[in-house]
Amino acid sequence: MMGKVYLIGAGPGAADLITLRGAGILKRAGIVFYDALVLPETLALAPQARLVAVGKRCSRISTDQRFINRNLIEAAAKYPVVVRLKGGDPMLFGRAQEEIEALAAAGVACEVVPGVTSALAASAEMGVSLTRRGVSRSVTFATPRVGEGEDTSDWAPSVASADTAVLYMAAGQAAEIARVLEEQGMAPATPVMIIENASLADARQIGTTLRGLRDSADLQIHGPALLFFGEVYRARAHALIAAALLDNGTAEELQQRRRSPR
Amino acid sequence: MMGKVYLIGAGPGAADLITLRGAGILKRAGIVFYDALVLPETLALAPQARLVAVGKRCSRISTDQRFINRNLIEAAAKYPVVVRLKGGDPMLFGRAQEEIEALAAAGVACEVVPGVTSALAASAEMGVSLTRRGVSRSVTFATPRVGEGEDTSDWAPSVASADTAVLYMAAGQAAEIARVLEEQGMAPATPVMIIENASLADARQIGTTLRGLRDSADLQIHGPALLFFGEVYRARAHALIAAALLDNGTAEELQQRRRSPR
Repeated sequence: MMGKVYLIGAGPGAADLITLRGAGILKRAGIVFYDALVLPETLALAPQARLVAVGKRCSRISTDQRFINRNLIEAAAKYPVVVRLKGGDPMLFGRAQEEIEALAAAGVACEVVPGVTSALAASAEMGVSLTRRGVSRSVTFATPRVGEGEDTSDWAPSVASADTAVLYMAAGQAAEIARVLEEQGMAPATPVMIIENASLADARQIGTTLRGLRDSADLQIHGPALLFFGEVYRARAHALIAAALLDNGTAEELQQRRRSPR
Repeated sequence: MMGKVYLIGAGPGAADLITLRGAGILKRAGIVFYDALVLPETLALAPQARLVAVGKRCSRISTDQRFINRNLIEAAAKYPVVVRLKGGDPMLFGRAQEEIEALAAAGVACEVVPGVTSALAASAEMGVSLTRRGVSRSVTFATPRVGEGEDTSDWAPSVASADTAVLYMAAGQAAEIARVLEEQGMAPATPVMIIENASLADARQIGTTLRGLRDSADLQIHGPALLFFGEVYRARAHALIAAALLDNGTAEELQQRRRSPR
């Protein structure tokens, strides 16, 4: 009798932003393999489970993934309910496909439970909708790579041509990314929002423009962060820029940090 | 003492795909204004609430929105907890901005609770990740409009240039949309998946190609449906096309319907 593996989206961070279904399966779980971005409050939803950290953030060498796959398959031989808990949603930048295929190849039953992806939680926090009648009817989510000898042109056209764009795992390369988007024809004055730690108590919002981002030195971002681009952010970004200028008396937009209103 | 209005994402349909936070607020709600796509099982999470249908699907004239806005403001004067319950997530094709701004203008406190957008539930159901290492690092979500005298070029470039694309509220115009995407340079052999009623018992998956979609007469879709385009769907779409051909003995790809495996 083999167990079943559930790939569950833990949501953006806050423990109560997981789904009822996800929480119900965690309650029954015998073992939970969790990512670095999953918080203790979420793990507390699985009181009976053995908890195994499989810390992975952003890119990492594929041996890690093979190690996780093997662990999931072995666990299914021991536990009826095995959970692989991922930040956000498993199917959007969650590397779920490799695990789904490894489990299928091993004949282990697998079910994916969707989650709230962090761009949606960040949008809720900003109070700014990704789409808006007459302004935005397309949204692109991407994980850009710049430098490293990789082709930089593959992600940029769809980002530059969307009405609204959200970049995941990009804050560390923000200035270089902004330079690529300017080259792709995105207007330097395009409003930009940076959201760090969406849905958590220490969430932070920064407002700037594409040019401001390009000229930024160090965003001093330590938690997971998303970059948002588009006209829908004009009022919010400008309000944060203006408030920061009044507070700090400096023209360096990106020094002007504002705690998110909660 | 004014009440607070919560704009809550009900998720893709299944009642247990709402968040713990959303369910907790529904439990305390005095009144719930809900969309046509919200199911009775989800409304049952609000046992104390007066339930008010504000049936809206896809586009509708703006008077409806003004009517909803006024209702929300009036309800906040009577009930401490007012819920506006929307299918999917409020900030992605949910028209939340108009309600947020009307509430702000009236001085009514408002909080957005994110939800699982239906593309993520459909991806979980297909078992195919929207992104995939080496294949797809950008995903575009869009609501296309074709005909009606509207400019058709605004949504198409970001859809055609993304690695993976998801179209919401598009199944009714599928053939015309496919024609526009071919004109934008999307390859006729691009794999396409159509998912109807994602997360529900009668969910349905259809596999085809961009050319197959263009040549389709009537998709016979009655529930909410999403169109998915991209290389990540190659194996799944081809398997469904092949299975349908074997079953039906006809080359009409789109006649070949398969119930989703659950």
